[in-house]
Amino acid sequence: MSRHLLALAAGIALLSNIASPAAQAQTARQPAFKTAEALRDKALKDDTAWTVVESLTTDVGPRLVGSPGMARAKDWAVKQFEALGFSNIKVEEFAKSSWTRGAESASIVAPYELPLSIIGLGRTVPTPKGGVEGEIVVFDAYADLIAAPEGSLKGKIAVVVQPMTRTQDGSGYGAAGIARRSGASEAARRGAIAYLTRSISTSDLRSPHTGVLSYTEGLPKIPAAALGVPDAELLQRLARKGPVRIRMKLESSVDEKAVAWNISGDITGSSKPEEVIVIGGHLDSWDVGTGAIDDASGIAITTAAAKLIGDLPTHPARTIRVVMWGSEESGGASEAYAEANKDKMGQFVIAGESDLGADRIYAIQLPKGAIAAPQLADLPALMAPLKIIVSREPAPFAGSDTEGLQEAGVPVMSLRQSALRYFDLHHSPDDTLDKIDPAQLNQNVAAWVALLYLIADSDIDFRALPAGAAK
Amino acid sequence: MSRHLLALAAGIALLSNIASPAAQAQTARQPAFKTAEALRDKALKDDTAWTVVESLTTDVGPRLVGSPGMARAKDWAVKQFEALGFSNIKVEEFAKSSWTRGAESASIVAPYELPLSIIGLGRTVPTPKGGVEGEIVVFDAYADLIAAPEGSLKGKIAVVVQPMTRTQDGSGYGAAGIARRSGASEAARRGAIAYLTRSISTSDLRSPHTGVLSYTEGLPKIPAAALGVPDAELLQRLARKGPVRIRMKLESSVDEKAVAWNISGDITGSSKPEEVIVIGGHLDSWDVGTGAIDDASGIAITTAAAKLIGDLPTHPARTIRVVMWGSEESGGASEAYAEANKDKMGQFVIAGESDLGADRIYAIQLPKGAIAAPQLADLPALMAPLKIIVSREPAPFAGSDTEGLQEAGVPVMSLRQSALRYFDLHHSPDDTLDKIDPAQLNQNVAAWVALLYLIADSDIDFRALPAGAAK
Repeated sequence: MSRHLLALAAGIALLSNIASPAAQAQTARQPAFKTAEALRDKALKDDTAWTVVESLTTDVGPRLVGSPGMARAKDWAVKQFEALGFSNIKVEEFAKSSWTRGAESASIVAPYELPLSIIGLGRTVPTPKGGVEGEIVVFDAYADLIAAPEGSLKGKIAVVVQPMTRTQDGSGYGAAGIARRSGASEAARRGAIAYLTRSISTSDLRSPHTGVLSYTEGLPKIPAAALGVPDAELLQRLARKGPVRIRMKLESSVDEKAVAWNISGDITGSSKPEEVIVIGGHLDSWDVGTGAIDDASGIAITTAAAKLIGDLPTHPARTIRVVMWGSEESGGASEAYAEANKDKMGQFVIAGESDLGADRIYAIQLPKGAIAAPQLADLPALMAPLKIIVSREPAPFAGSDTEGLQEAGVPVMSLRQSALRYFDLHHSPDDTLDKIDPAQLNQNVAAWVALLYLIADSDIDFRALPAGAAK
Repeated sequence: MSRHLLALAAGIALLSNIASPAAQAQTARQPAFKTAEALRDKALKDDTAWTVVESLTTDVGPRLVGSPGMARAKDWAVKQFEALGFSNIKVEEFAKSSWTRGAESASIVAPYELPLSIIGLGRTVPTPKGGVEGEIVVFDAYADLIAAPEGSLKGKIAVVVQPMTRTQDGSGYGAAGIARRSGASEAARRGAIAYLTRSISTSDLRSPHTGVLSYTEGLPKIPAAALGVPDAELLQRLARKGPVRIRMKLESSVDEKAVAWNISGDITGSSKPEEVIVIGGHLDSWDVGTGAIDDASGIAITTAAAKLIGDLPTHPARTIRVVMWGSEESGGASEAYAEANKDKMGQFVIAGESDLGADRIYAIQLPKGAIAAPQLADLPALMAPLKIIVSREPAPFAGSDTEGLQEAGVPVMSLRQSALRYFDLHHSPDDTLDKIDPAQLNQNVAAWVALLYLIADSDIDFRALPAGAAK
């Protein structure tokens, strides 16, 4: 903080003290404040979240939809809910075609032989058995690929090497991620026989980052993979010096008849159990790490927060439901849940997800108008010791786990985690337990439990807030 | 720096000013000072080192002894010396058996199937064709393996998971490295059928770190590999919960008739060309990265420093010889050079190597007594702006490149680089160009060039220094 800001803050503090002395502030607390505060402080010392994340990454391991790991995870989830005292445990199956990675390799062939570190993008088609080989065309930015004329990549392998920007709010992912999601089809549109993208990563490491792609209908489906960051930079340097040829082999298979499961457990409300707050993280993970930050953390944070509330002698009025979403990486879980529960949408008070790792929360965003609601007046005081601001910006998009609910009109909240480190690890072999800082993990639980308790103990109707009450 | 130390330093500075005012200090400078100072400052802005390291890592790539990359590197080295104005360019061939990695894989088999990130240790024997499979025994420290009784590992796979300590001087490597160098034979002595060590690494990444092992004569040679750090920690956690079985396959081959080359070039001395200062780095590298920090950096730093001196209108008195050592990782280059040049040992004034990456130098260590020599009186003043101390400790062991010379009685110097980051990357796929910070690289060149010029322009005889002159 600058000296100027410090002085300003001190001035504001002084004014606040005059306007609302401590004694007055205390009498003004909502009835839920003391319990929420105690839950918050207990969460900081509780080891439930760590135990959950340790078990899911160690005892289950990676869990791609359709894999034996995902079947283990389903059983694990039910046992966790049982052991932690949840009720109304449900396993909701839905159809979800699965994709399985096979052997993958790539090499520079000219100017000299050199193996490259690559990983097939999720749902890529395999190469022909003998692989593909061709000269590369390197694009420094995705926009350069889009600017290339149709036919200009005939017989070539297109390589996009645009780096990703490190941002606290994770917005660098959206900007860079299009190269992974749409690059293969855009390259195919211009005649390319295969596609490579620099990993969508903020690291400088060779471990490549996978993630799902989306083929555009009507265009040839070409094989697509992500390069390690130094591999992308090497290709960029070599291509400036002369022609570079690459060989790539990808194997994979698809099972159109596979299924996935959304698994949920409730902390039943004491007086208004039919009003449900939906929270959770996703149980599935990419195959190459053990899915620690993506998203065993989210499972652990939301489960631990709900469990702490479940341990109270008297539950708050409303039900808190933890959903362990069964297919986020490949999509479909959120939509399946919304479809299966379409008659109950009116019961869902609010939805929120934890799906950006285990680093600290720095801001909370609520539905429009909620910041001015008297039922949440204590939220800033509860969050201040956790160094979390209650944002004046409403939650824009809660995330892909809760997208189906949000699209069906359920209000959403967003507990914004720092993404400064997340994309170093995300979707890579290095998404492992050791990357989780237990203190930051618990800061997440503390924020969730205090916020959840306030909402669950209140009668706030996020759908009925006056639109003009606040931003 | 603490306030106390700051006050102390200010006091010392004050005393120094009284004892030797600026004008007096300037007149006391050695004749070489001004040139050394100008070379130092030029080096900070010069791009020779970057150009060399970029070319070796981009145009040549990895260069294990016996590989096509090493043959390319030999030709590259001769061309570099020619292009940079070196004379007396020599390629000295020596016999060096080579080892080549083949396909490698390992998986947990029980309690569930999971691929592990491993890399064969240099010179490991291959596994039998079908691989080896066995229950693991995890040792938290190498000393625990040594404490295990003979026969206690019969049919087992021994796994040492001792972590490495991060230190500025790199001393953590020696302490941890024994698990890589000697662990396989110590495990075999106790009956193990295979051996795994946590990577000798300060990182927390899955990219495993290789490095050479040494089999003890008279003991069975068992296959040995290094685990990614999270893989080692996963095995450690799983083994605490119950039995863990692993399958491992390693392929490799050895060519006993391979050769390697030490390649050297001189900046010939103007008046005492037969007095030779030997510097350099090693040209060979492990196969999995592109050998940027280990040791294209050392090649680049020493070559650039010598080249800057070569560009002077008048060379200093003595010759500066850059040797690009042809087999450091597998050993033998230093000894081969000493053997081939055994009649010339008396000509070698001093030897030094750069083989700890490209991060900044923080201290210079000279032969015993040299710190008090009047010919080097200006060294602290030359190094101060680079934030380098001239150590009171004499250079103990210059390193494996110059070991042969040191053992033959050649005095050595050591320009100590920070190892705080080096062992995150060393011997791993992530030893790539992007890890080099050009500013720190040039700080190295600046230190080398100033020190080299002082020594080359002087008559200092490091063999004849009074032993009691300083520590």
